[in-house]
Amino acid sequence: MKKVAVIMGSDSDFPVMKNAVQALKEKGVPVEAHVFSAHRTPKQAGEFAASARENGFGVIIAAAGKAAHLAGVLAGHTTLPVIGVPMKASVLDGMDALLATVQMPKGVPVATVAIDGADNAALLAMQILAVSEPELANRLEEEKRRMAQQVLEKDEKLQAQILAL
Amino acid sequence: MKKVAVIMGSDSDFPVMKNAVQALKEKGVPVEAHVFSAHRTPKQAGEFAASARENGFGVIIAAAGKAAHLAGVLAGHTTLPVIGVPMKASVLDGMDALLATVQMPKGVPVATVAIDGADNAALLAMQILAVSEPELANRLEEEKRRMAQQVLEKDEKLQAQILAL
Amino acid sequence: MKKVAVIMGSDSDFPVMKNAVQALKEKGVPVEAHVFSAHRTPKQAGEFAASARENGFGVIIAAAGKAAHLAGVLAGHTTLPVIGVPMKASVLDGMDALLATVQMPKGVPVATVAIDGADNAALLAMQILAVSEPELANRLEEEKRRMAQQVLEKDEKLQAQILAL
Amino acid sequence: MKKVAVIMGSDSDFPVMKNAVQALKEKGVPVEAHVFSAHRTPKQAGEFAASARENGFGVIIAAAGKAAHLAGVLAGHTTLPVIGVPMKASVLDGMDALLATVQMPKGVPVATVAIDGADNAALLAMQILAVSEPELANRLEEEKRRMAQQVLEKDEKLQAQILAL
Amino acid sequence: MKKVAVIMGSDSDFPVMKNAVQALKEKGVPVEAHVFSAHRTPKQAGEFAASARENGFGVIIAAAGKAAHLAGVLAGHTTLPVIGVPMKASVLDGMDALLATVQMPKGVPVATVAIDGADNAALLAMQILAVSEPELANRLEEEKRRMAQQVLEKDEKLQAQILAL
Amino acid sequence: MKKVAVIMGSDSDFPVMKNAVQALKEKGVPVEAHVFSAHRTPKQAGEFAASARENGFGVIIAAAGKAAHLAGVLAGHTTLPVIGVPMKASVLDGMDALLATVQMPKGVPVATVAIDGADNAALLAMQILAVSEPELANRLEEEKRRMAQQVLEKDEKLQAQILAL
Amino acid sequence: MKKVAVIMGSDSDFPVMKNAVQALKEKGVPVEAHVFSAHRTPKQAGEFAASARENGFGVIIAAAGKAAHLAGVLAGHTTLPVIGVPMKASVLDGMDALLATVQMPKGVPVATVAIDGADNAALLAMQILAVSEPELANRLEEEKRRMAQQVLEKDEKLQAQILAL
Amino acid sequence: MKKVAVIMGSDSDFPVMKNAVQALKEKGVPVEAHVFSAHRTPKQAGEFAASARENGFGVIIAAAGKAAHLAGVLAGHTTLPVIGVPMKASVLDGMDALLATVQMPKGVPVATVAIDGADNAALLAMQILAVSEPELANRLEEEKRRMAQQVLEKDEKLQAQILAL
Repeated sequence: MKKVAVIMGSDSDFPVMKNAVQALKEKGVPVEAHVFSAHRTPKQAGEFAASARENGFGVIIAAAGKAAHLAGVLAGHTTLPVIGVPMKASVLDGMDALLATVQMPKGVPVATVAIDGADNAALLAMQILAVSEPELANRLEEEKRRMAQQVLEKDEKLQAQILAL
Repeated sequence: MKKVAVIMGSDSDFPVMKNAVQALKEKGVPVEAHVFSAHRTPKQAGEFAASARENGFGVIIAAAGKAAHLAGVLAGHTTLPVIGVPMKASVLDGMDALLATVQMPKGVPVATVAIDGADNAALLAMQILAVSEPELANRLEEEKRRMAQQVLEKDEKLQAQILAL
Repeated sequence: MKKVAVIMGSDSDFPVMKNAVQALKEKGVPVEAHVFSAHRTPKQAGEFAASARENGFGVIIAAAGKAAHLAGVLAGHTTLPVIGVPMKASVLDGMDALLATVQMPKGVPVATVAIDGADNAALLAMQILAVSEPELANRLEEEKRRMAQQVLEKDEKLQAQILAL
Repeated sequence: MKKVAVIMGSDSDFPVMKNAVQALKEKGVPVEAHVFSAHRTPKQAGEFAASARENGFGVIIAAAGKAAHLAGVLAGHTTLPVIGVPMKASVLDGMDALLATVQMPKGVPVATVAIDGADNAALLAMQILAVSEPELANRLEEEKRRMAQQVLEKDEKLQAQILAL
Repeated sequence: MKKVAVIMGSDSDFPVMKNAVQALKEKGVPVEAHVFSAHRTPKQAGEFAASARENGFGVIIAAAGKAAHLAGVLAGHTTLPVIGVPMKASVLDGMDALLATVQMPKGVPVATVAIDGADNAALLAMQILAVSEPELANRLEEEKRRMAQQVLEKDEKLQAQILAL
Repeated sequence: MKKVAVIMGSDSDFPVMKNAVQALKEKGVPVEAHVFSAHRTPKQAGEFAASARENGFGVIIAAAGKAAHLAGVLAGHTTLPVIGVPMKASVLDGMDALLATVQMPKGVPVATVAIDGADNAALLAMQILAVSEPELANRLEEEKRRMAQQVLEKDEKLQAQILAL
Repeated sequence: MKKVAVIMGSDSDFPVMKNAVQALKEKGVPVEAHVFSAHRTPKQAGEFAASARENGFGVIIAAAGKAAHLAGVLAGHTTLPVIGVPMKASVLDGMDALLATVQMPKGVPVATVAIDGADNAALLAMQILAVSEPELANRLEEEKRRMAQQVLEKDEKLQAQILAL
Repeated sequence: MKKVAVIMGSDSDFPVMKNAVQALKEKGVPVEAHVFSAHRTPKQAGEFAASARENGFGVIIAAAGKAAHLAGVLAGHTTLPVIGVPMKASVLDGMDALLATVQMPKGVPVATVAIDGADNAALLAMQILAVSEPELANRLEEEKRRMAQQVLEKDEKLQAQILAL
């Protein structure tokens, strides 16, 4: 199976982004994580992205806050799908990171997920790999059913809470 | 090759979204387009998404404006990657559609592109398919080089304009 | 009297939404509460709404946060009035949930109340039922007079605080 | 059947709000329209709302722009459901009117619809009356089916447009 | 001297607004404070404003949060200058209250100060009275000089802090 | 009667602000208008404000767009009431001018009116002067009654339009 | 004198940015302009910035719209001062470009000017060069006086317009 | 070397702005700091800026919150480059200060950095001085390499954390 890269603009993003790494590991998806900065180590970031496909990666996840350029910069160096996670780490609740990640110009898309959406970034990466990995697709379908089941159980549990009001 | 579905919430989205259909056709990617409404024909929308993988689709693109629920509703019925295009068609410049598309809860990601970003949605869909289609990957790399070349030509052309100032 | 349904997108909404359930119970309005997810259990949500009128419901209250699709999805399956409560549970102070709830397209209205406005959702539901329930209307009028009286008492109490400054 | 009142803060709101009046008339719902200002004719506005129930009204629709106080002021004088339509008529795209309409304090809800959402205000008013008017409920169900049918027809028509690309 | 009225929409505004009351008292300006609600006690609010001039008031200060209608409603009943204080008491940082206070329609101005700006509301009220009260104008000039002096002293104190770095 | 000063940051503000000048002239209030820039002619602006009271002014109206500093800068040089008019003349719909005008620090209030609210600035200036000018107060009361009358007439006229639908 | 570089993300920015080129030329400041894309020609952009100082540049001006990464990417490759011009060219009035330009992380500043502020970018570049170029500083001082003079002339001209009202 | 001035609108800005003072001291850049208020001590602020160049300053950094006029007011009195730091100290997360700082009119630029961006303001000031100070330029280049090295070390350290998951 192709690997997923989880790139962070700063190690301060790790407490949120480790959820993505764990989610990928749990489903048996090979994952590699790095701290690369679009502004401080642009060369390393660019080279990583440029050679990612030939190095066996299928998807790149990039997390950054404030004027979040990381996902876009990586997307400028590869034709692999790049998933952007706008980080809240800012005085503006992550709205700056969201706009700086999603409003990409024609020709260089970034697949943007919710602010601090590390879990969904991992899930989206797996959905992308699963397009050509039926076994992984099955595991995602199973997980989807489990999620639905959990909601039904919460609904049941709610009935007791309502009666207790 | 897997097919790409381009779903619009309204036929008024077609002038923008036909760019996505054309971009996919030009690269030889099989595409199917539909008008489905998350609110007016929820059953058709849900059934389409639920059976999309077995019907040969690899990616779903969904475009909607205002309280844009379409991409999220489709994502609720499939584990295929769903790309959301927030449409500007609103009094709030598409900010409502952007937030309603990107801020999805855990477990149901939508890969969101820029407001009115039909071209990038098509390109992202092709990047996703290209993870397991080396031939398509080559075509995307070639296109990326052509885009770079165009910028260099524009830079050259600019020099004449500068002199003329 | 017709019943009121209080639907939550997540059990994490219950601490806020139990105020709505209690307010309805206190006025003797029959209420039923459920956790349904627009994205994880779309089928259950849709079926509940589609059969709500024949099951004796008069109004549906739906609470959800972030890209809040729940109220709109329910409204897509019924012609009963649907009240939407945008939940703050997000990094954007609930502005995402507000826009995703209120900016509904033509043909599928959602009666939106303030962010985290569980109390007002319950009150609005009762106002709707009271259109054809004179007894309930009387209770609401009485409550309105009590609220006014409370303000007058607070005004009186303020006078002492002012003197003490 | 109870009447619906359509109140505008200014006659400049009429080009948008006449859609609400027409929609109500078409479904045979009795409607009365007025220009009342929360700030210029507060007494008339207050008295209208205070006596609306005994004068045979079931719902009040109120449209206003900018610092849109009209719906809230009417709601302060009645326990009938009040539907607020934030008007775009402003330099801020109606965001000011939306927040001034929807963010009502506890005890005085306003059922807010989308910016310039005159059609949905009328439809919501009919949904509210239909809670106790089965005949009207039937007409709304029929209309909902017709809307769905229109989407299906647009989908069919789209297929020809796609082929022509 | 004319009196200043400090009107609050809720007693929860008092911790902020007592600063206004105190500032007025300290300068010897007669002040009266009330809790009136634009929505719960509209009649009392309207009557107070309508008779404020003949009751010896020169300025009305009104503080309210969320969909802050209070200042506008009072301004609808008087031609006295009305100062609006948008209160932060909301999930939207007071932006809702700011827009609902300042964006008043033609013919009914509200003199809006900063969010939670109780002190400045009091000072503005005194500036308004001082237009025809030379003695009060002198006190305000003196205060302005004292404020300037304080800044100069803080600048001096800063020099020591800088050296210590 | 004290004079009113209407200060513009740019002569491009005149098409909007001439409404304020005219409104003041029509009510017989002495008015003087100037183009002063907080940034280009700060000395003239400061000196005008500093000597405004002794030169017979009672109120200063200041209009500016974008990073609108004019009203605040004038307020820094006087204890007269300063009314700020945020101008829309910007790519951000005047939201920048609104925040730059209204969010003044403690000790230097600006009485802010709506974006492009030239008419209300003039009216507020007259309300301020009228605190000590009973004759002007009467004229404002009369105008308020005329405005109410106009709304009533518009309501009457609306009835014919409704019948014609 | 050191040169100023004016870099555009797209040739569509030229109608706005040519004002910057002209302003620099008029003051005799050597200027070079290029179209470089942070995403399409990242290598050229990076190399230009990395060698700009040794190639005789003193300041870099970078203009880009939407998720405007250009200024930040250039700043990542140089320690020359980089001035960012957020372009309006977007559905969000340039707010996305503003936040993506100004909210840079620690260690990589971008000197951001107003949306579409090409003139001010050129002026700021000249102010930076003038720190060590007394002759240029004199020209800027002269220009500043001319600007002030223009305001005074506009003020004079306004007096005639006021009389004509 | 020319001096850098660090001006604060209030001593409450010092906890953030002392980072700028320290960063300048550490690199051996002469620095002077002051508390000046655009509104309370406008004369001192203006005179300081007007004579800053002849007093040996090369750059002015100005920090202010809310309706942040300080940087703009200083820029109105000098042709030295003025760097603006919008302070978060407000209920609106610093968005008011950002817009009031960056949206300057033509002819009076402010080089705006991120909200609370004291470090970057200091670094930008040094970049400006370094245009004509090769030795300082070298120190900045060295610092840039050190920053890059730190990122590479963090990346290495991350590998251990990933293995431990």
